Amino acid sequence: MLKFVSLLLALSFCQGLQHNNIDDYVEAEPVFEASKYGSLWPLPQKVQISEVSFKLTSSSFRIVDAKASSAGPSCSLLQSAYRRYYEYMFGSAKKQWWSKNNRRSDPSDLSELQVWITSPDSECDGYPSVTSDESYELTVNQPVAVLKAPKVWGALHGLETFSQLVFEDEYGAKSINATIINDFPRFQHRGILLDSSRHFLPIKVILANLETMAMNKFNVFHWHIVDDQSFPYLSRTFPQLSEQGAYHPYTHVYTPADVKMVIEFARLRGIRVIPEFDTPGHTQSWGKGQKDLLTPCYSGSKPSGSFGPVNPILNTTYDFMAQFFTEISTVFPDGYVHLGGDEVDFTCWKSNPDIQKFMEQQHFGDDYRKLESFYIQKLLDIVTSTKKGYLIWQEVFDNGVKLKPDTVVHVWIGGGSDKEMSNVTAAGYTTILSAPWYLDYISYGQDWQKYYKVEPLNFEGTDEQKKLVIGGEACLWGEYVDATNLTPRLWPRASAVAERLWSAKDVTDIGDAFNRLSLHRCRMVERGIPAEPLFSSYCPHEYKGV
Amino acid sequence: MLKFVSLLLALSFCQGLQHNNIDDYVEAEPVFEASKYGSLWPLPQKVQISEVSFKLTSSSFRIVDAKASSAGPSCSLLQSAYRRYYEYMFGSAKKQWWSKNNRRSDPSDLSELQVWITSPDSECDGYPSVTSDESYELTVNQPVAVLKAPKVWGALHGLETFSQLVFEDEYGAKSINATIINDFPRFQHRGILLDSSRHFLPIKVILANLETMAMNKFNVFHWHIVDDQSFPYLSRTFPQLSEQGAYHPYTHVYTPADVKMVIEFARLRGIRVIPEFDTPGHTQSWGKGQKDLLTPCYSGSKPSGSFGPVNPILNTTYDFMAQFFTEISTVFPDGYVHLGGDEVDFTCWKSNPDIQKFMEQQHFGDDYRKLESFYIQKLLDIVTSTKKGYLIWQEVFDNGVKLKPDTVVHVWIGGGSDKEMSNVTAAGYTTILSAPWYLDYISYGQDWQKYYKVEPLNFEGTDEQKKLVIGGEACLWGEYVDATNLTPRLWPRASAVAERLWSAKDVTDIGDAFNRLSLHRCRMVERGIPAEPLFSSYCPHEYKGV
Repeated sequence: MLKFVSLLLALSFCQGLQHNNIDDYVEAEPVFEASKYGSLWPLPQKVQISEVSFKLTSSSFRIVDAKASSAGPSCSLLQSAYRRYYEYMFGSAKKQWWSKNNRRSDPSDLSELQVWITSPDSECDGYPSVTSDESYELTVNQPVAVLKAPKVWGALHGLETFSQLVFEDEYGAKSINATIINDFPRFQHRGILLDSSRHFLPIKVILANLETMAMNKFNVFHWHIVDDQSFPYLSRTFPQLSEQGAYHPYTHVYTPADVKMVIEFARLRGIRVIPEFDTPGHTQSWGKGQKDLLTPCYSGSKPSGSFGPVNPILNTTYDFMAQFFTEISTVFPDGYVHLGGDEVDFTCWKSNPDIQKFMEQQHFGDDYRKLESFYIQKLLDIVTSTKKGYLIWQEVFDNGVKLKPDTVVHVWIGGGSDKEMSNVTAAGYTTILSAPWYLDYISYGQDWQKYYKVEPLNFEGTDEQKKLVIGGEACLWGEYVDATNLTPRLWPRASAVAERLWSAKDVTDIGDAFNRLSLHRCRMVERGIPAEPLFSSYCPHEYKGV
Repeated sequence: MLKFVSLLLALSFCQGLQHNNIDDYVEAEPVFEASKYGSLWPLPQKVQISEVSFKLTSSSFRIVDAKASSAGPSCSLLQSAYRRYYEYMFGSAKKQWWSKNNRRSDPSDLSELQVWITSPDSECDGYPSVTSDESYELTVNQPVAVLKAPKVWGALHGLETFSQLVFEDEYGAKSINATIINDFPRFQHRGILLDSSRHFLPIKVILANLETMAMNKFNVFHWHIVDDQSFPYLSRTFPQLSEQGAYHPYTHVYTPADVKMVIEFARLRGIRVIPEFDTPGHTQSWGKGQKDLLTPCYSGSKPSGSFGPVNPILNTTYDFMAQFFTEISTVFPDGYVHLGGDEVDFTCWKSNPDIQKFMEQQHFGDDYRKLESFYIQKLLDIVTSTKKGYLIWQEVFDNGVKLKPDTVVHVWIGGGSDKEMSNVTAAGYTTILSAPWYLDYISYGQDWQKYYKVEPLNFEGTDEQKKLVIGGEACLWGEYVDATNLTPRLWPRASAVAERLWSAKDVTDIGDAFNRLSLHRCRMVERGIPAEPLFSSYCPHEYKGV
């Protein structure tokens, strides 16, 4: 028996009662028991936990750079991570002071966690990328624990794992078992999509969710920043886009400083920020500040006054896009930008006589997908010239647009997504999966289990094809969420996706997952994140907000 | 055109775009336009709003007792309501100070709201009840507005309505239109059920939701305080019930002081607190602290170690219940207590040889409903002797238990609830409806519309029968909600139920409801309540928490 198990069992007396509508007998709902992996989430690739445990004292325990580490005190990414995780483990300064004055350290204590970046280039001042090394090894033993990682990205994950191993024993003392962990992600792209157009998301909400992403080892923030409903991105080149297109030009925009803060906050947690500027559809809000960008729709022989997708037949459109994406390429450091390309409605294009003429000239016949591809092709060339790679929604691939070999195709359409994964990878493209992980769709009960049971490689294809699947994203579209309800709706439901994308393929025990996730969600709550409950239960420290 | 309409229209430019998965064309979703009733919610019975508007200044505007009012400065219920609504309307003291020093009052301002309690007994120090008079008349005109109500309960509702009439004009000035309102509730019992057993709800969460109930003119807090999963009620008579049955005996209990605070906080807002102590089923947590209360289940000829519903064949059971409900009758001032009685599973009773013997002695045959009725009958007599009325879930009626004429039958089973309403009222019992309003069931999209469209009197029956329907309750069972997500999940979905139970039967325009409710939800957000959005939109002041 691991020592921490006895503590965790304290939870089970109440969580064993799981019935809802029927009295007196336990239903086929998961019942809380302590997992032998405690509260680890997502589960590391290799874990050995021994029965021996050590105490940690807040007054003497330190997280320090190992002597041989290539990252020293000047690596502020690690230094601020040390402080962050120290606070997660030991709580507020007040508590620490008390502890400092009341407890002597003991020779059986764990006194240090040494963080050792082993590669000559720690990447401390760089940005994470799709090829970043995120692996780490963690050895907890007396008198010191050692966290080895080639790069800072692995060290960040290792710090999170270390903090998850620390538990309170029955006397309230912080303890940790002797442990050896060897860990790396199964998939390189593990993302969360948030949508700041259907509802504006205050920066505070975005940062809180980046924080929570790090607790779940997510490494991509897919920022669906603009859409039909509003254009909150304040462009230096085209300020009228948000001036006219945001819900409010001052209170509901992201200034350059805001964007910079989000990117740096994410970087410090090993998270890439991939912005999405979706065109030619989903662009109603763009049209408010950029005259002639959208296609005028016709009613009979006259303009109806409403507008359709981006107008693909004007040179001014491409001049605009070139300038706009040049700005984007400098504002967002990531090597990739998401270009959207989904759900283009042809009704308006069909109604417009100038478009009809153009279709004839280009010999497109009645195939408006060709017109769409014409637009996208030119857009991709523009973006390529800014030295960025791109992600696109699956329709762009489906329509046969010529794509750069390093394009990432984003599969989102539910029903037939296995077939789509086969097709995309058979064509040699890298792909990420979101179809089963649309978290904006809600239903009664434990839907996290449905997300958890997804196996991204369950499609027909060769091993080579499977290797082209670099990960996936949980998408929380914004129609029904804003600052009032986004965080509890996302967590811990997205945590299910986190483990699927990080842990080994055979980590599929739903009961064990329930037990670990119950504790992981209480840990998120204790860290100030309103992560909602899985089922009837309690947390030792309930959420303090309302 | 009302003056405030021009301001409200500022919202419509963005909310007119309602599409989700289809580009460029507006779907058949409600589109935001200003209602001629502004942001009033629930809609009063009679409203006349004129085009004339007045300004209110925070420095000079006052809410005062009318000279002829039967409630004076000693009525702290009204005095604290004045302060609460003043702050809702004018915001923080800091803002007021600035305003005070920068604006002179104008002869065209509205300078006062006079609150006039017309009945000799204002009921200021009493508790609201099912027969309380909640009506009020509000006349907004220069130089003063007058709010007349027979009792303080109507005055509280009138203050809420007054605050809903105040709007910010385009210069940020607080304004109100000349208005005459004559208002009273359609149904007397308008409740919210919260469940503090499946998850413990911190007092702060309960108070925040009482606050929000008042904003929606709900008047009953049905506190489903204990159940199988935990027993957080700290009983003075039987402290071991929460000592053993709560999730935690100190951090997850409601002390007598907590309960008192909830009751007084509710009273100050015109809200009754009806506690539910559900027996004989849903009592697993009771058994932990009260030996021999529950029925031992048998496996073959031996006790299995698990327990079933309350043991109905022991005298000690009834001794316990008599003492327990005597305490409850003094702790909770309301005239009614909810006794539950739902979902009794007979499996355990059937397995127990002592119960089998008792069934024989009583000539109950195999009909365990008779045993259930035997128990309930004795319980009802006990509670009657404490001078309380009672509510019971529909099964108790269905099983033919003899009920006091003033019993309230609570209809909750979905499917056939119309028939049940017919039966209950045909038998002459008062009834309340919850079946269509189980808000713990969630689904994608605007489910508030479904709740809104319910007509409680749409069942077969005479006018006399219809009069027996005194209202309904929105139920938010606790399996999937706790402090992290309860409030945004409840509001504004429960607001739909609020209007159905308060406003006239013919208030059914879903488009007008959408428009008013969109503004009402932003008002709740501005008052610090994380009420979730109805659809893509924004609020001038977004939620400040996370």
